[in-house]
Amino acid sequence: MNIHSTWLYVVDLARHVQFITTTACLCYDRNSLSPPTNFIAVIFATCAEEKQESPNMADVITKLNRDDKKAWFKIEWSDGYNARFPYVFLFDNCRCPDCFHPASYQRSVLMANIDPDIRPTGHEVVQNGEVIQVTWPNGHVSPYPAKWLKMHQFGKKPYDPLQSLGVKSWGKEKSSDIPTFKYKDVMEDNKALYGWLVKLLTDGITLIKETPGEEGVVAKLHERVSWTRKTIYGDIFDVITMYDACSLAYTAKQLGLHVDLPGFYNTPGVQMLHCIKQVDSEGGDNEFVDGLRVAEQLEQEYPKILQTLTRMKVDFRTLGAEYVPYHTMTQRPVIEYDQDGVFQGINYNDGVRAPYWSLPVEEITEGYRALKTFHRAMYDERNCIYYKMEKGDMVIFDNRRVLHGRLGFQIRVQEGEESKKRHLEGGYLDWDGIKSKMRLLHEEIHGLERF
Amino acid sequence: MNIHSTWLYVVDLARHVQFITTTACLCYDRNSLSPPTNFIAVIFATCAEEKQESPNMADVITKLNRDDKKAWFKIEWSDGYNARFPYVFLFDNCRCPDCFHPASYQRSVLMANIDPDIRPTGHEVVQNGEVIQVTWPNGHVSPYPAKWLKMHQFGKKPYDPLQSLGVKSWGKEKSSDIPTFKYKDVMEDNKALYGWLVKLLTDGITLIKETPGEEGVVAKLHERVSWTRKTIYGDIFDVITMYDACSLAYTAKQLGLHVDLPGFYNTPGVQMLHCIKQVDSEGGDNEFVDGLRVAEQLEQEYPKILQTLTRMKVDFRTLGAEYVPYHTMTQRPVIEYDQDGVFQGINYNDGVRAPYWSLPVEEITEGYRALKTFHRAMYDERNCIYYKMEKGDMVIFDNRRVLHGRLGFQIRVQEGEESKKRHLEGGYLDWDGIKSKMRLLHEEIHGLERF
Repeated sequence: MNIHSTWLYVVDLARHVQFITTTACLCYDRNSLSPPTNFIAVIFATCAEEKQESPNMADVITKLNRDDKKAWFKIEWSDGYNARFPYVFLFDNCRCPDCFHPASYQRSVLMANIDPDIRPTGHEVVQNGEVIQVTWPNGHVSPYPAKWLKMHQFGKKPYDPLQSLGVKSWGKEKSSDIPTFKYKDVMEDNKALYGWLVKLLTDGITLIKETPGEEGVVAKLHERVSWTRKTIYGDIFDVITMYDACSLAYTAKQLGLHVDLPGFYNTPGVQMLHCIKQVDSEGGDNEFVDGLRVAEQLEQEYPKILQTLTRMKVDFRTLGAEYVPYHTMTQRPVIEYDQDGVFQGINYNDGVRAPYWSLPVEEITEGYRALKTFHRAMYDERNCIYYKMEKGDMVIFDNRRVLHGRLGFQIRVQEGEESKKRHLEGGYLDWDGIKSKMRLLHEEIHGLERF
Repeated sequence: MNIHSTWLYVVDLARHVQFITTTACLCYDRNSLSPPTNFIAVIFATCAEEKQESPNMADVITKLNRDDKKAWFKIEWSDGYNARFPYVFLFDNCRCPDCFHPASYQRSVLMANIDPDIRPTGHEVVQNGEVIQVTWPNGHVSPYPAKWLKMHQFGKKPYDPLQSLGVKSWGKEKSSDIPTFKYKDVMEDNKALYGWLVKLLTDGITLIKETPGEEGVVAKLHERVSWTRKTIYGDIFDVITMYDACSLAYTAKQLGLHVDLPGFYNTPGVQMLHCIKQVDSEGGDNEFVDGLRVAEQLEQEYPKILQTLTRMKVDFRTLGAEYVPYHTMTQRPVIEYDQDGVFQGINYNDGVRAPYWSLPVEEITEGYRALKTFHRAMYDERNCIYYKMEKGDMVIFDNRRVLHGRLGFQIRVQEGEESKKRHLEGGYLDWDGIKSKMRLLHEEIHGLERF
């Protein structure tokens, strides 16, 4: 009763057009557990051009054995590769276009209809080994392309093309090796854009040079990557040196190493600082330290302090009025790892460390000792790099991982000489959006197939 | 050499004007460890109106004893209350306006100059017990108002006015008890706004009625609270029933219970759905379940499954094109607690559960058993509530905690009858911004003093 045929159809995902082979079928809605009364005809647009190439033998299935005790199939390919596929996983991931919607890439199988202990009533290799089809107790027949099955690797994480990009910590040697890109290339060439984002992910710090050096560049780059992360500073913020108009001289103080906005649980993932005007005088250099490297050093040199820094929560508080008035509060460890021990980021900012601390009073002094050790490690001369931006430079860094600061500088501005002020524009992006863009670019460049 | 005097000064935080008493001093920058060469004159605007009320005796300090072994002061107030203050905490939190900037509420003390083992060289109670002043080895004299000291409670978390708002889980009885507010009140009255946000925080679901029922209402409410959380759907999204223009009948399918965007690590905190047009026919009701209640039930009834659901990571994937093309991937447990065991939220959405799973193959079937148990608990008749919105209704719920779904419905639309389509507009907010607004409102309504 089920008629299967292979089609080549077109999914237009707005700007991303893909040709995908899959197996279409005329079948009833298997989410209904009652006997089928209606059949839904699934109609595909016929392909503009039929796939002519002969199947890659390595992708052909030669053996399909069931193991009802383990509740999985053992599948072997013609190249000797073999893998196991639990029955319930296959039921949940039927590849017929009624169960897996090809345009939205979403399943329509409901958990209500899933039985973790399901056993197939039939199975066979069809299409000369290019597809297996499994029949379920409700009569539904599910097709699974050999190629799709082979892409799976349970227990590993090969599904994310970014997974293989290793993160590399750095120290002061990075001063002469900040990954540098040209604005024009990044804006116009997708490969250059991908190359820049890879370095941002792996190194946590990058430099884009030769921007127009005008306001609006940060917003343009945001749009090129994903979407602006709005904060209490609005979409884009300006860092313009403030000075007392009554005073002829004003010392722009040193800004200690910090991450921005640890007083938000959703701390922005990436910060951009774009130089529109730098001071002519000495100072005003930006200072950067890789928090991942600091954590690695503490693990080696002060393992107990590292433990404290990952467990002890520090209170942060931001209070004021920028784009909107705000009063945020968080309690976070200085160094964050996830439950698998993967480094997540640093929460450190002396300015917004709260003037209260929720630790028991007996732990306060020891808490300061841990903070002090972190601070010394951060400022260790092995770690600091400096870069003084000039007009048309933009530094883009991982705000969860890389701490930034600014050396003090002196400006002498008189009334009417506002043009001499130091002027940066800044903004934030989130890693969700950046990585999303990277996967799309990776697909465009390397042609990895989608699940 | 240090001259102290108490001033009343005015800090204008844009829309929030506050009168704060503190102690100003003429002092040198204690962040310089070398002998002082310059003195910075700290000038405050004199107050418009001097504080006349007599000091509250309960706020007066009667005893100040040092304990150099423990490195803290023991302080006693006239009402018998007593507390300990570690020396280094006081050094770090000097309340002179040079060390703690009264406009930005940020400290300018640098960690570089903090010695966790510091010992004061002098201490005394001044201003008739309203202030203590501590002298440090570098000669700096720090003032600490008695009231400010008394606000501290190490080991507790009284600093957040929202801390005392208890979260209450709910079941089906909530159907007749969804906290309901009028749009006009929430938009015009700060107390009503605060009252609504309190219920959103404690109950996780609220209803606002009598909106204008037009597009733009979600954006206006966002602006009233904080700022819009942009996602792949842009700032505001429309949920308009799509139908095949070639077909006379179209079944809008059931949407299973889910949270939005678990495929983002920064899942939006709160979702708003505003009804501009509802279907005339049966169906289209929204369905809600409190994920916190489900977690509590599982803890009681299936503790081992709960453990699995908090540890086992599920792969989520979103792929498509809305405001921008996107391809996001996450791996998250279905039920999330923080390291202190506090419930953080639910990650469940069958549509965007990925068609691959990074679990070892031996754990897959057991994984489905856990998901199935979660699903059954979620749909347990003790838990589900239903609400069919009408034009001018807006439902606002905690998207990390409360799962939402939609019952199927039928529409019969012919070409030219677009006005019969179901139309909702939606948007997201983040808890950082909501809680920030709540603290400002709390302060405005209850007058809690700031640290």
